[in-house]
Amino acid sequence: MFENKDKTTFESLGEFGLIHHLTSSFHLHHATTIKGIGDDAAVIDPGGDSYILVSTDCLIEGVHFDFVYSPLKHLGYKAITSNISDIVAMNGKATHALITIGMSSKMTLEAIEEFYAGVHIACQDYGIDLIGGDTSTSRKGFFISITIIGQVNKQAVVYRNGAKANHLVCVTGDLGGAYTGYMILEREKRLFMENPSIQPDMEGKDYILQRQLRPEARKDVVSLFETLSIIPTSMIDISDGLSSELFHLASQSKVGIDIFEDKLPIDPITYQTARDLGLDPTTCALNGGEDYELLFTIHASDYEKIKNQPDITAIGYVTEEVGKLQLHSNGGLTHPIMAQGWTHLKA
Amino acid sequence: MFENKDKTTFESLGEFGLIHHLTSSFHLHHATTIKGIGDDAAVIDPGGDSYILVSTDCLIEGVHFDFVYSPLKHLGYKAITSNISDIVAMNGKATHALITIGMSSKMTLEAIEEFYAGVHIACQDYGIDLIGGDTSTSRKGFFISITIIGQVNKQAVVYRNGAKANHLVCVTGDLGGAYTGYMILEREKRLFMENPSIQPDMEGKDYILQRQLRPEARKDVVSLFETLSIIPTSMIDISDGLSSELFHLASQSKVGIDIFEDKLPIDPITYQTARDLGLDPTTCALNGGEDYELLFTIHASDYEKIKNQPDITAIGYVTEEVGKLQLHSNGGLTHPIMAQGWTHLKA
Repeated sequence: MFENKDKTTFESLGEFGLIHHLTSSFHLHHATTIKGIGDDAAVIDPGGDSYILVSTDCLIEGVHFDFVYSPLKHLGYKAITSNISDIVAMNGKATHALITIGMSSKMTLEAIEEFYAGVHIACQDYGIDLIGGDTSTSRKGFFISITIIGQVNKQAVVYRNGAKANHLVCVTGDLGGAYTGYMILEREKRLFMENPSIQPDMEGKDYILQRQLRPEARKDVVSLFETLSIIPTSMIDISDGLSSELFHLASQSKVGIDIFEDKLPIDPITYQTARDLGLDPTTCALNGGEDYELLFTIHASDYEKIKNQPDITAIGYVTEEVGKLQLHSNGGLTHPIMAQGWTHLKA
Repeated sequence: MFENKDKTTFESLGEFGLIHHLTSSFHLHHATTIKGIGDDAAVIDPGGDSYILVSTDCLIEGVHFDFVYSPLKHLGYKAITSNISDIVAMNGKATHALITIGMSSKMTLEAIEEFYAGVHIACQDYGIDLIGGDTSTSRKGFFISITIIGQVNKQAVVYRNGAKANHLVCVTGDLGGAYTGYMILEREKRLFMENPSIQPDMEGKDYILQRQLRPEARKDVVSLFETLSIIPTSMIDISDGLSSELFHLASQSKVGIDIFEDKLPIDPITYQTARDLGLDPTTCALNGGEDYELLFTIHASDYEKIKNQPDITAIGYVTEEVGKLQLHSNGGLTHPIMAQGWTHLKA
């Protein structure tokens, strides 16, 4: 079943390579399985006009969050919204969720209640029915595993593999905020560890802290597409970072992508914080994950529909050069974009 | 949202009480949600003749399994079949699965491959499409979270709450095997820890070891019900132990249940092993979990259809005495049955 075992390591595979390595020999048995592993969500056809969408994701203490600065209520909220984002990325509407938690013996009932209070708010805000889950002890630390279910009209479903040469590449919102928020939290944690009497200095950082701790899913964009009569030709949510998602869209669509540095939407607070921390804002926008914005492509003829939308930015175009990702910098140079993957396993 | 915090503890709630405590304030938003939390699987109506069934469950190293005696291939198999059992308990057919794993840095690629080889065999055996998942590092130990999806004809779905007075109470297969298998494995582990040169003594125990390490889901029983034209009035799978499941059926159906000790199906190997270990075989059958057999009720008029089925045993009947569970012992006495719950959290 698995060939060349001794030549293969976790590092050489990467996260997505590992999943492919482990699951590529699996067969599909059901004609109702429209899309299995390899997109933001799986697609099942229950008959009728809509598909069922299903996605699962986990958050692990010490890997994906840190209790030193992650309030449990925010964590519950983020657990739901970060998963909804995968349904949104299929152009669908999330409807149902199941939550499994593993908690160490240190966890109090009040702590779990706080977590569920955040889950509750997210379910209210996004119209999600919590329909199941599991609760167990863990050996160490807290972990959360979420399954989210949604639906999409069969005519409107969007995959990662539909981008074609000359389509426009767009993103929603702005990028790099969650990453710079994370860097501020890590800085303050480090200072606090060195000197617990120190007051955290996070004034004026509300926006990027919220981007990191309590992100929203772009449910509104799915409605906007409907209003504008746009069906993107490909789409993915920006959870691991723009460069990583560009890589997925390009490789699954068998195309190349050129983007322009001066088009990357970066919030002024993100920009200034990056500068203050000695980071390149463009690098934060390209490689910082967890913004939960959408990266998508549209037919060039749809440009008129989006050009005045303040929350959508065209950042580049699709080329025929399979797998070639390029950034046209402000300085007039062209740089290859390196995909940053393996986010979870390297953490 | 949560009242009387300081009066409530994990211990006083129990696992099912905890889930109820955390989720009872959640509202349902969708008319498509036929059944949320509180049965073996959630039930969603996608339109058409069938319901979609969804269930999720987790297995955690040191809580639900022990690498000293759980071969990874068996663990992968069990992760799938134990979840399929929840779909079967709704009288449905499992179709799709999603797997999330968290693994410590000690885990090798070969170990993960072994685990997935077991998942693969179970998916082949049961006709399951693996359509998604997540892979991450964990802080300590291995954990698995599975979501299983199935379908059931709307006319055939069976809940926990349909039992009525005078219905017959039945179980499939035999009980207590997985528990006595577990006790043998724990004994051999203890002896091995004391003296690593000792040879494990598990001769003649294949049946109960397999019940513990590599259980099957009773998919065949769903087909048998169809053949016999039986739709149970209530059903649940026996994962936490017969007494715990009797408690769930009785409380959700608002009935009582009387069962007979001499009717409990116990395999001769289970019986002899329990005796050799100084355990009461009846207690093993009542409280030992993980057999993944089915507990169900039928109309008394359906008795003729099942009485000659070797794999179905009528063990008692439903009464009007709400919440009263009784065992009529071989000695002619009547004992109250105490529900054993909290399986995961007490581990």
